[in-house]
Amino acid sequence: MTRWIAVDWGTSTLRATLMPDRETRASGKGMGVLAPGAFEAALLELVGDWIEGPTRIVACGMVGARQGWAEAPYAALPAKPLGAGLTRVATQDARLDVRIVPGLKQTAPHPDVMRGEETQIAGILAEKPDFDGIACLPGTHTKWAHLSAGEVISFRTVMTGELFATLSTHTVLRHSLTGDGWEEAPFLEAVSDALSRPETLAARLFELRAADLLYGQDAAIARSILSGLLIGAELAATRPWWLGRDVVITGSERTTRAYDAALRAQGLIPKLLPAEAMTLAGLTAAKDLP
Amino acid sequence: MTRWIAVDWGTSTLRATLMPDRETRASGKGMGVLAPGAFEAALLELVGDWIEGPTRIVACGMVGARQGWAEAPYAALPAKPLGAGLTRVATQDARLDVRIVPGLKQTAPHPDVMRGEETQIAGILAEKPDFDGIACLPGTHTKWAHLSAGEVISFRTVMTGELFATLSTHTVLRHSLTGDGWEEAPFLEAVSDALSRPETLAARLFELRAADLLYGQDAAIARSILSGLLIGAELAATRPWWLGRDVVITGSERTTRAYDAALRAQGLIPKLLPAEAMTLAGLTAAKDLP
Repeated sequence: MTRWIAVDWGTSTLRATLMPDRETRASGKGMGVLAPGAFEAALLELVGDWIEGPTRIVACGMVGARQGWAEAPYAALPAKPLGAGLTRVATQDARLDVRIVPGLKQTAPHPDVMRGEETQIAGILAEKPDFDGIACLPGTHTKWAHLSAGEVISFRTVMTGELFATLSTHTVLRHSLTGDGWEEAPFLEAVSDALSRPETLAARLFELRAADLLYGQDAAIARSILSGLLIGAELAATRPWWLGRDVVITGSERTTRAYDAALRAQGLIPKLLPAEAMTLAGLTAAKDLP
Repeated sequence: MTRWIAVDWGTSTLRATLMPDRETRASGKGMGVLAPGAFEAALLELVGDWIEGPTRIVACGMVGARQGWAEAPYAALPAKPLGAGLTRVATQDARLDVRIVPGLKQTAPHPDVMRGEETQIAGILAEKPDFDGIACLPGTHTKWAHLSAGEVISFRTVMTGELFATLSTHTVLRHSLTGDGWEEAPFLEAVSDALSRPETLAARLFELRAADLLYGQDAAIARSILSGLLIGAELAATRPWWLGRDVVITGSERTTRAYDAALRAQGLIPKLLPAEAMTLAGLTAAKDLP
């Protein structure tokens, strides 16, 4: 089988997998720290020794953004997740045959974009070709995508991961959210609170600081409550997406566990498909596209 | 009339006013950048030339926090805003007679604390001794306080100002929220959206980024929408506080204008009392307390 390289190139991380061996390497040279002219060198620095002759490289993620290596214009919905084909990139090293998976965009009912998650969705559909339901891809920017007949019908982005990271790093709450503990009981209680009374969310945040100042509330409890409030608010906003639907969750292990617990508490039994494997399956499906 | 100095000493700013002349000076030596032993020097650096003999200095704000000059323990609700008296501070310069106004705390129905706003509330009550209603003190951490018969009955903190600053500085939205423009129409529309459908808030934030990427939405419009969504979420969370009540707004000019517009759109006609004047009135009321 021909060697090729699957690349997941996001804002903060460059992750390359040599196929079919599945050896994986990663570096911190994400799109966020690279000028457009620096992508080829960053790739060769990481995997130059894998290039033994003409080699196809299939990449997804922010590498295809306007500020990336080369812009891969968004495909408009409804669309197959890889329906727009790949964008070829000119390289200085003639052995490299680099192709980027375009993201998806939607203009109605609300503006939204994704880059990278379309590849995970392609992986989910490679795994379950007849899946009709909702793909929940939790992360920095969680995506909820409605999949039917092999197409993405619509999607919705919620910034839950970035909100949690920002609140616990850059606001007064940071003093009360130290460590990385997490406990399921206060998490689920906060999810339930946010779902049943979403209008109270804005007033719940400062309680985490006050409870620390007044009676030394444990930071792991506070983190679990904040996580529950934010995921609960996300589930409140996306209720029409998941209520009574088949849901697949594709995320990192820890994040998937939280979303799975939150949705199970609402009576759903999501299917879980790991994110890295779905990215690889999606890039594999993309490899031979024109 | 005896000279004395009114001091509003918050996390980021030290502001001193020589009384009764009302000459005001400010420095960036807020509580956040000072070790406990550095407060006296910071004060003398700013206003040392005002000290001509024994001088009373009355201070409010984070200067009284555990990490401040000296801890002024919170008074528990219900309480008159200055009901706990002042905390005296030992100084090296024997001419200084420094007193700090304690903050307020509440443990039920939810934990909450304030430091500094109790002094503005004392100013509001000095201005309107018979006021029975709600004081809205918008800012980094907006406070909603129920005042009756000269006492603070309960209060609620919403981190709207800090959320806006953090989202527009530390998240992906920052690229789409540049400048400092503000427009009332999209602001009020977003307030109304958030109030009528608070459960959708979590999904609205990323739209600001997508609308910029897809059709270059103006940053001033995006800032106005974000401000409206956050203040709308705050009004949704505090609806029992303001609905059908007399409301006084005491904040900076720009912030007061936004909250006034939002509440007027809900049919209220708030009274407006400027924040700096209320702080000074509160410190004046505190000056001769034991």
